[in-house]
Amino acid sequence: MPLDNPYYSAEMQGPYTMHSIGRFELEEGGVIEDLELAVATYGELDADKSNAILIPTWFSGTHATWWQVYLGPGRALDPEKYFIVVINQIGNGLSTSPHTTADPAIAMSRFPHVRIGDDVRAQEILLRQVFGIERLALVVGGSMGAQQTYEWAVRFPEKVLRAAPIAGTARNTPHDFLFTKTLLDAITSDPGWNGGEYASHTDVADGLARHADIWATMGLTTDFWKTEFWRGVPPLVEGVGWTTFEEFQQNFVRFLFGLMDPNALLCMGWKWQRGDVSRHTGGDLAAALGRVTAKTFVMPIEQDMFFPPRDCIPEQQLIANSELRMLHSIAGHFGLFGFEQSYLDEVDAALRDLLATEV
Amino acid sequence: MPLDNPYYSAEMQGPYTMHSIGRFELEEGGVIEDLELAVATYGELDADKSNAILIPTWFSGTHATWWQVYLGPGRALDPEKYFIVVINQIGNGLSTSPHTTADPAIAMSRFPHVRIGDDVRAQEILLRQVFGIERLALVVGGSMGAQQTYEWAVRFPEKVLRAAPIAGTARNTPHDFLFTKTLLDAITSDPGWNGGEYASHTDVADGLARHADIWATMGLTTDFWKTEFWRGVPPLVEGVGWTTFEEFQQNFVRFLFGLMDPNALLCMGWKWQRGDVSRHTGGDLAAALGRVTAKTFVMPIEQDMFFPPRDCIPEQQLIANSELRMLHSIAGHFGLFGFEQSYLDEVDAALRDLLATEV
Repeated sequence: MPLDNPYYSAEMQGPYTMHSIGRFELEEGGVIEDLELAVATYGELDADKSNAILIPTWFSGTHATWWQVYLGPGRALDPEKYFIVVINQIGNGLSTSPHTTADPAIAMSRFPHVRIGDDVRAQEILLRQVFGIERLALVVGGSMGAQQTYEWAVRFPEKVLRAAPIAGTARNTPHDFLFTKTLLDAITSDPGWNGGEYASHTDVADGLARHADIWATMGLTTDFWKTEFWRGVPPLVEGVGWTTFEEFQQNFVRFLFGLMDPNALLCMGWKWQRGDVSRHTGGDLAAALGRVTAKTFVMPIEQDMFFPPRDCIPEQQLIANSELRMLHSIAGHFGLFGFEQSYLDEVDAALRDLLATEV
Repeated sequence: MPLDNPYYSAEMQGPYTMHSIGRFELEEGGVIEDLELAVATYGELDADKSNAILIPTWFSGTHATWWQVYLGPGRALDPEKYFIVVINQIGNGLSTSPHTTADPAIAMSRFPHVRIGDDVRAQEILLRQVFGIERLALVVGGSMGAQQTYEWAVRFPEKVLRAAPIAGTARNTPHDFLFTKTLLDAITSDPGWNGGEYASHTDVADGLARHADIWATMGLTTDFWKTEFWRGVPPLVEGVGWTTFEEFQQNFVRFLFGLMDPNALLCMGWKWQRGDVSRHTGGDLAAALGRVTAKTFVMPIEQDMFFPPRDCIPEQQLIANSELRMLHSIAGHFGLFGFEQSYLDEVDAALRDLLATEV
């Protein structure tokens, strides 16, 4: 029986529609008998279906941050010009997920391993079957969304005209694998997790809090904390603010991750650890990225602690038709949340340039 | 009754001598009735006692790495020229520590909170009482040893002629506080820790392993893992090497931290989180560092993830008689272990220059 968790609802995340793509066989051998993807669309698809933009979601994320922070009239991602499709990744709590499925064969601890490649194949089917979309004007995503963006550009080069991986890599690094492991172990080490068979995500509150604390270290930066940038971050709950960094950690970072489903985070984390486009080319990253024909802007965030520019730039250099567009946020990786207008302006300027490029 | 842990022995760490400085009142209000410091000395004190160098130890460390890696004839820290005193910090497992004390009032979970300032006061007493040393040609330390070096230079400016804080700060940052918290929570979240009243450090093996995994992320760097630098690191136990990064993590990082005492790590971590020379000046860091008269070389490691140059450089700029000497190690903070001759050469060159400076 699905668990009740109000975080994964249209009230919290904004409207979306569930689309089934039926039985779906996963790369690792598991099967989801009825894979449903939670899809949010903005704008209208034009007659020749040439104005579609795809946005895959990041770890712990949904479509919410995209419509709240990145989309809007006059913005680069303008729903008055483009048909923008945000597809929630498998296992993220909205699309078919361990705690939401009614299928006992895959519920909770029995949820099969999913790979980035599975998400991208499922998204391709959905776009074709539901919307008749065969080519994308742009694929853009942050973090695990960048992993999916790279996977799209390598797996379906003829379908991706432009690509903008933000704050993510094409092949996950061992350092990032180890970092993600600490995040996941923070959850699974909580006795309340119970091998994945908890009765409520609140049974895993301690593990989720430790998970959030690791995020505070690697997701944010020393400058974010030192300058007390958090003083200007609006509260998540009216009246529940913060006057110290410990309170911000409690009432923002811990609060946010404490709402989430542990098994959903574990599903996404396993996938993240293994993101690797070179699986298509026997481990040869240069060969894999050599397949990319999309005009590509690689967009790391300068202070990112776990998808740092030093990991992103060598990948950009392997993509023929690419440019490096460095982003700047004092929040590091969590700059993705769009805390700063200056960061959003940088993203918009880059995406405008990219969308204006003839391909 | 003290716990048996063979890691904390002269066989494992190299020779040292225990010196009691008697009853010692701590800044936080606790008392150690008979504070014993584990001291290792190298070389001979000259007649006018002008050739003394003090080295305080880092988190989880002892005097071992110093004699193994940094000291030697012809090196900057040359026992044929200097009288080099390495003093193990309080609670590190060799000096009076939670698991070694025979005093039931402070054993295990009852061990009192210790501050960096306590260590420095105790070291000053010891140097004066045992060796008659009133002035130090140099204080040099890495990480928490750098915290103690700064504390020496601010608290006893007239006693410190030269100072070399390596990979550490004078005032700990909130980011570093939060990072250290994840390290400590990895231990205390293990049920085997039992509120500090375990029967053996092996009862806390899971927590120590998670602690080690966080170190692998923040202590080392993405370049260290990506380039497989670990292939050249010699095994800790003969015949127990590694051919994958997971095996290195298991047989080096986890193995090493798994030998240690959990309460010792917690004692040191609490201290580390609160290192702050501005306690002497009502929170005014500029005023505190303005007290430093020592010729000071501030020596961050370029890829350090938690004592990054961006935190160290602003402090250097507040010290009148100082220079920045950047160090480079692909291992980041764990470069302190001395994996690379190039790094050791940089350290030696800087310390030679510093020791050659007339003061």
